[in-house]
This record gives sequence, C-alpha cells and structure tokens, in this order.
Amino acid sequence: MLLKRYGDATVRFNKPVGIKAAASIVGPKEGEGPLGGLFDRVVDDALFGAETWEKAESEFAKEAVNLAVSKAKASMTDIDMILAGDLLNQSIGSIFGLRETNRPYIGLFGACSAIGEGMALGSMLIDGGFASNILTVASSHFCSAEKQFRFPLEFGSQRPPTSTWTVTGSGAILLTAEPHPVSIISATVGKMLDMGVKDVNNFGAAMAAAAADTILTHFSDTGRTPADFDLICTGDLGVVGSQLLIELMSRKGFDISAIHQDCGVEIFDGNTQDTHSGGSGCGCAAVTLAALYYDKLAQGNLNRMLFLPTGALMSLTSAQQGESIPSISHAVEIINTKVLG
Amino acid sequence: MLLKRYGDATVRFNKPVGIKAAASIVGPKEGEGPLGGLFDRVVDDALFGAETWEKAESEFAKEAVNLAVSKAKASMTDIDMILAGDLLNQSIGSIFGLRETNRPYIGLFGACSAIGEGMALGSMLIDGGFASNILTVASSHFCSAEKQFRFPLEFGSQRPPTSTWTVTGSGAILLTAEPHPVSIISATVGKMLDMGVKDVNNFGAAMAAAAADTILTHFSDTGRTPADFDLICTGDLGVVGSQLLIELMSRKGFDISAIHQDCGVEIFDGNTQDTHSGGSGCGCAAVTLAALYYDKLAQGNLNRMLFLPTGALMSLTSAQQGESIPSISHAVEIINTKVLG
Repeated sequence: MLLKRYGDATVRFNKPVGIKAAASIVGPKEGEGPLGGLFDRVVDDALFGAETWEKAESEFAKEAVNLAVSKAKASMTDIDMILAGDLLNQSIGSIFGLRETNRPYIGLFGACSAIGEGMALGSMLIDGGFASNILTVASSHFCSAEKQFRFPLEFGSQRPPTSTWTVTGSGAILLTAEPHPVSIISATVGKMLDMGVKDVNNFGAAMAAAAADTILTHFSDTGRTPADFDLICTGDLGVVGSQLLIELMSRKGFDISAIHQDCGVEIFDGNTQDTHSGGSGCGCAAVTLAALYYDKLAQGNLNRMLFLPTGALMSLTSAQQGESIPSISHAVEIINTKVLG
Repeated sequence: MLLKRYGDATVRFNKPVGIKAAASIVGPKEGEGPLGGLFDRVVDDALFGAETWEKAESEFAKEAVNLAVSKAKASMTDIDMILAGDLLNQSIGSIFGLRETNRPYIGLFGACSAIGEGMALGSMLIDGGFASNILTVASSHFCSAEKQFRFPLEFGSQRPPTSTWTVTGSGAILLTAEPHPVSIISATVGKMLDMGVKDVNNFGAAMAAAAADTILTHFSDTGRTPADFDLICTGDLGVVGSQLLIELMSRKGFDISAIHQDCGVEIFDGNTQDTHSGGSGCGCAAVTLAALYYDKLAQGNLNRMLFLPTGALMSLTSAQQGESIPSISHAVEIINTKVLG
C-alpha cells in the first residue's frame, strides 16, 4: 500500500472526492448581507420556532443536512457517515440537531475550522474506501455564541473594532466517491499554533498565524505557489486577521493579496451591517462555501481553490484563567475537474 | 477500489492496524484501586502541580502522549497525526495539553466514547494510507468534571447510587501501519441513540442502549456472535448500565453475561472506594485499556476483544433546558495476531 501522504501534513487522494451537494441556511442578518440571494434558505426568525438559542442552532444544523440530502436527490439512508461540529459546550448544536438521523456519527471539535476538518477527514474516509457518501456539517448562532462566550444579549455590551459577528446558520457538504465536476484532490491537516494572543475580541490575530502555517505547509508539501491557485480562501479571519495573514505570507516571500478572500469578509457588509471586522463562527465558512464558491466552481468561474477554515481554540474558562488562544486551520484543495481534470 | 465497508456501519481493514504502545497515567484514587499497580504512572497530587483542575487535566493528557511515544521508542516527529478529545467545554483538556506537540491535530468530540472514536478513525486513516503512525488520546479529571457539570467540590453534594465517579487520568494509544501482535481489524462507527433518559446522575442507563445498538450492529454487519469473542468490553456503563446492557442484549437473543466487562466497573473497588456505580469519563476506558487489557492481548491471555467506549451526549445547558441524553458508542475489534493471524 502506497502512502498517500506528502511532506509533513498533506494527503493526496487516488481519485478526486466529489462534492455532490453543498447546502446553506442562514438567519435574517445574513440574508440581508451581500450573499443574501445565494443561500438556499433564509429564515426570518433567528429563533427558528425553537424555545432557546441553542435549540435554534440545532434546527439550523438539522435543516442544512436535510437540504444537502435533498439537493443531491438522495435520502438519509444513502449517507454512510456524518461528521459534524460546532462551538457550543459539548457540541450540543450538532448533537441535538442530528440525533434523529440514525446514521453513523463522528463528532468533531475544531472550533470554527470544523467544516474544513470535516471535509479533510471525510475525503480521507471516502478515498480510503470506508464510505461512499459522507455528510459533513457545521453550525453557529450569534445568540448562543454571545450568551456562552461573551455577555447576555440584554447587556448590550460594546464591541471593539477587532471583534467579529458570529454567523447564524449552518452549511452541509455532501462528499461522494462518485466522479463530480467539483472535487477535493488534497488536504493539509492543521497543527495547533499559539502566538500568545490573549485578546478574546481579536480572534483574527490569533488565527492568522495558523492560516499562514497551513498555507506554507501546503506549499512546501506539494511544491505549489500562489500562482497555482485562483483563490486561497480562509474561514473567518475578518478584515483584521486577513491583513495579518497577507503580511505574514509576504514576510515568507509569498504575495497572496490578489487571490485571497475570507468568508468572514464576504458574508457581511461591514459598512452598513455593524459587523466590525467581519463574520465568524463554525457556520461562516460552511455557508459561504456552499452559497458563493461552490456554484463558481461548478460553473468553471473558479478552477482551483485552497479552502481553509480557521479555528480559535479556547473556552471561557481558559480565557478566565489567563490562557492564550491557540489556533488551527485545516485546508482542502477543491478543483473543477472538467477544466483541470 | 473495493469498499472496505460491511453492512450498515462496520469497516474492515486490509491489513491489521497495530497498537504499538498504550500508555496510562492516573490520579491518586485510581492508583489506590484494583488496577493501581498496572498504570504506567500514578500521580500523588491530583492537581499535578498545576494551578487549576483544567490545567491539571491538560498535564495528564500531555504526559500520556509523552509516555506512549517513549514506550514505543519513537519521537514526536514520527507521529503523523494526533486525534484527541475530552469532555471539557471546547475540549480545553486536550488542546492545552497537546498544543506544543507541533503535529497535525484532529479534534474529536464523542464525550466518553472519545478513545473509541479516535481508535476507529485512526485505524481508518492508517489503513487508508494517509498516515503511518497516529496517536489518539483521551483525558478526564474528577474535579474539572464535577465543577463543570455538577456542583463545586466544596458544596459536598450527595451522590445517588446510580452516579459514577469521573476518572482522573489520561490514556494514549499509538496506532501504526507496522505489523504488531496487538492489532485492530475492524471498527463499527456508532449512531446516536436517545431513549429519553433525562437523569444526569444515571448516564449508565442512557448509554446502555447505545452500547447494545453498536454490538448488535457489529454482529449483524459481520455475522459474528458472542461466541466469537473472549471479551466484549464497554467504557463506562458502570454497574447499573452494565446490568441494563446485559438485559437489552438478552432480549435480542444474545447472552453476553459471561464475556462482558466494563472499564468503569474494573477501575474502582465499589465496596471500599465510594464510587457507587463505577468509574466514568473519557479517561476511564482509555487508561483501563492501556493498563489492563493491552498487556493481556500482548501476552495472548486475551485473543479477540470488542472494545466499545460509551458516551453520554449532553451539556449543562441541554440538561437545564429539559433535554434528554442521547448517547453513542464506537467499537473496535482488537485481536492477538500471533494467535488469530
């Protein structure tokens, strides 16, 4: 058996792993943003008919999964495994949203890198021959996140310019062993990096280093350079973190400024939506990939993309105990196989 | 490429995945229990020199990983990926314990099934050709768990007879592509089950159903029966959950009473250690496998074992909002390859 591993942290697949469907469902604020018309479903009520914010987040995850299965014209019994993660304590967003799926379930924790972790891992499981169809899903909710990590909503706390706005929504990606025009051909598994950043209102600064490390590892493992990509897309660095990433890459001799985008920057209009540095949360990268980039890849408007959601690894307790914020970023290389075959 | 999947949820490996080393480190109470002499290290101070219980838990995870690497006469740079999980909010036990490893890191959340999830997933990644050596680790700590899920220790709350005692400790398992006398040959990925149990002092009752479901799925996927195994070993059902499991299996026509053991029952002496139903926590199954069963397998005193850690999927918030407790159990089949080849 030949090892499918390259360099320090990259794996390449024998056969491209298809992305059969990508589904997105978001709350009202996301619906009013620049990508509003592209989501599969915009829910007017952020509570989604539930009694609590946590239960609302679960509803978003449940509906994202149903949408992805339905867009692929499949049924839940076609799914061999579900890989899911969110930021709520003990992942209750995913668990209570997906407990009725009755499919083999792998719980993930990668903070806001969850959908990248799920896509990387899911692709390996399919290419390894362990599954034909894998659903991976990530969710977040502004209100459950504020309540858990920051202040009660009623408190109306001030948010500094470096802070981000947690996306309300969930994105689900259906990976398949079948050939598909939009496919994943490699993945780079991230390492934890800790730059000593302690500001819980500036995750972008903490995560920029992890994103830079994963991109540099991907380049070094594969011999690629920025010129090989149409797009290098991070998850939720926001405006502040994106500037830092470009600077960090520049110091290493790579100019990615023309081909870098960040889901957190794309999803909101910072000028009119009061979202400061941009969007964040496990749902941010997942819904933006599903709504914006997946169609571009399918239409051949985007041919090779490095997609790397970013996660800030901390809890309220670790922050209160004076700990810094380690971060991580997992990358998948997505191509249009018709163009790049 | 032939799919290595059998039935609904079981995967079989082309080549047995070796368990190169299994390491355990525990706190003082575990050291005084029946397995005290078998652990690699017993730490007298449950705080492990740290300032807080959470940081202590991280120290246990860090040391378990170092012990496993050292027992395998390897170095950290030989490790292709680390798969880790614990029960603290946002997995800070694993994250702060392992942030300096500088290896590709996959965060898991499966509550107390974490080491089963890690071993199942790690085996797939090795058999799929994506890694040669994978470390998987799980940790828990009585004091960080009580503080987070129940009451402050100082409160001295009464514990009902169905309650379990969270194990302080961490177990690390080093999986390898190399041939090894102790190897994993198949895995059954668990599904979430929710029997409507809401008693947070009776996780055994919630988890027994998930264990039964995974064992029955494994039997049905592989055609095996209890007669094929020397041992079917659950993670932390405790005395109460173990009785329920045996009854649930009996109703389905399988008598497993003679070959069933539970790590939570083995690790403490319920008569003298005031642990009520038994031990629990992500560390429970991990340290018991490493200290007790791994050597038996290596020595040929145990030839075929179904090892299935069990997890109760809930948070303080979900319990306070009146939710029931879904549960999950992931199984790996471990054999002595010298005897069973």
